[in-house]
Amino acid sequence: MSQSGFASTPRPPYYAVIFTSQRQGPDDGYGETAQRMVELAATMPGYLGVESVRGEDGLGITVSYWESEEAIANWRNHAEHATARARGREAWYSRYELRVAKVERAYGGPPKAGAQ
Amino acid sequence: MSQSGFASTPRPPYYAVIFTSQRQGPDDGYGETAQRMVELAATMPGYLGVESVRGEDGLGITVSYWESEEAIANWRNHAEHATARARGREAWYSRYELRVAKVERAYGGPPKAGAQ
Repeated sequence: MSQSGFASTPRPPYYAVIFTSQRQGPDDGYGETAQRMVELAATMPGYLGVESVRGEDGLGITVSYWESEEAIANWRNHAEHATARARGREAWYSRYELRVAKVERAYGGPPKAGAQ
Repeated sequence: MSQSGFASTPRPPYYAVIFTSQRQGPDDGYGETAQRMVELAATMPGYLGVESVRGEDGLGITVSYWESEEAIANWRNHAEHATARARGREAWYSRYELRVAKVERAYGGPPKAGAQ
């Protein structure tokens, strides 16, 4: 994740994996594993970036960006990631939803006054 | 937004609008307008749901889900929404990124032990 919290993604098309989750229970290794997954994902081929937020109520949204479906599959198949997901299902999350989406267009801002 | 914080979306395909933003400055109507936009979006044709989280550092991710590109365009063209976006660009956000993506597959969990 960049220091700003925003991912620097290229011109579309590319892919987004939208992971929404509700934390439950004690930390029990969660924080360390989550940080490790962010670092590990960044080493994967086709990784473009990540944006991640968790609120005080434990609801979180993490969006990771990837060049291709193949890159997402590679990351999904990484053994350490698979182990972490299993811990997530068993202990850390009361619920999660994962959606894989193809980003078709993107823009940002705000353009500052006079910046045109 | 549902009480759980999760959107109840149908089987893909459908669309996701991923809005990442960094809040700045005083509230200055932000909270009220944000709540109003959530309520207004839910009245729009083709609206499927929203998931939204903002962290203590002011970084937020809101993902709204829509049946079609046309539904997204209708919402974008809603006058009150356009006014709110302008306030966001001018005052509430130091930066934002918006990505429109087509959700191709989705799954959730966790399946509880013995639930199979």
